[in-house]
Amino acid sequence: MKIAVFGTGIVGETIGNKLLQLGHEVKMGSRSATHEKGLAWAKAGGAKASLGTFAEAAAFAELAFNCTSGFGSIPALEAAADGLKGKLLIDIANPLDFSKGFPPSLFTGNTDSLGEQAQRALPQTKVVKALNHVTCTLMVDAKRVAGGDHDGLISGNDAEAKAQVTKILKEWFGWQRVIDLGDITTARGTESYLALWVRLYGAQGTADFNIKIMR
Amino acid sequence: MKIAVFGTGIVGETIGNKLLQLGHEVKMGSRSATHEKGLAWAKAGGAKASLGTFAEAAAFAELAFNCTSGFGSIPALEAAADGLKGKLLIDIANPLDFSKGFPPSLFTGNTDSLGEQAQRALPQTKVVKALNHVTCTLMVDAKRVAGGDHDGLISGNDAEAKAQVTKILKEWFGWQRVIDLGDITTARGTESYLALWVRLYGAQGTADFNIKIMR
Repeated sequence: MKIAVFGTGIVGETIGNKLLQLGHEVKMGSRSATHEKGLAWAKAGGAKASLGTFAEAAAFAELAFNCTSGFGSIPALEAAADGLKGKLLIDIANPLDFSKGFPPSLFTGNTDSLGEQAQRALPQTKVVKALNHVTCTLMVDAKRVAGGDHDGLISGNDAEAKAQVTKILKEWFGWQRVIDLGDITTARGTESYLALWVRLYGAQGTADFNIKIMR
Repeated sequence: MKIAVFGTGIVGETIGNKLLQLGHEVKMGSRSATHEKGLAWAKAGGAKASLGTFAEAAAFAELAFNCTSGFGSIPALEAAADGLKGKLLIDIANPLDFSKGFPPSLFTGNTDSLGEQAQRALPQTKVVKALNHVTCTLMVDAKRVAGGDHDGLISGNDAEAKAQVTKILKEWFGWQRVIDLGDITTARGTESYLALWVRLYGAQGTADFNIKIMR
């Protein structure tokens, strides 16, 4: 499958590398098609890895992952909008504001969310919020923690798109359970949870954890 | 033990009833010592149950629970401040804003929290945030869900006060595990989590759940 991964940071690299391992063709999207870190990633990734602008990566892909930083997400998605029409975007980004250091605050997530902003910026794209509530190594290898005995949480307006994301999480990334929280406004839930995630990270001294909903 | 429970709503009633069951003397605190619902609760509760103003309940008690609604919390605690000096306050309240219906938004929790506001309003009281991340029936009966196999999360500046709250949660309310998130600023974590809680409640159709941290 031809897949775009927006963002050249650690999340984009981790998602991109896993997709390459699975045999997909991956074009990393960046503000510049000559982005140094992106080019290095593409070189290391081999024949199926490449770098392009956000627009080029979107046009190339059948499916896209948004792994940009929170503040960079909407400009990136606006640049990619034409190429994403009719496609599925898995939005992994979080509205984290590190301007005052660690722990970060959230620049949205209460009465709006980055997921909703992404859907509004891409009205002809099916946006599904997913994976944003765990560290990136866990996103692509759910069994890394507790043998996979924890819950994935997704949000989106389109049932078919959410079914596709559930399948991707289970078949590609080893997730055992995926809970559909509801429409894209429920992304406020998983984005706001980041405020607890950073405190759990601080208290436990590891990012290798996720929550399991106990009933 | 003489205990104050601030708030005459369902949370105050549930906490108050459990404390009575455990044999404690409970004075419910309200804006008015003739609050109709509070008087009915005290009458039903028997000889060890009574109603008073916030100030009267605070003066009476060795320990207090803040079960007021979010918007009502700080005025209630300011009214109780003198009587709470040198005592422990377990802050259960959440900054929920239902003014636009369900699901509620949060009126604080990102760069500040109700727990911190409570501690600032009561500089001579040891405030510990606890139990606010579960429904009230579960607060006082952790085994109600998954046999108690889930996590309590607490925040506070004073280690001894947190140890006391941990003991109360375990010995009085049946909690098996209590995670100390850190100082009172970590209340931002559990308060912000409410934004996810309301979505999990919506998706699952039950409030009888809690999270377990999986590592």
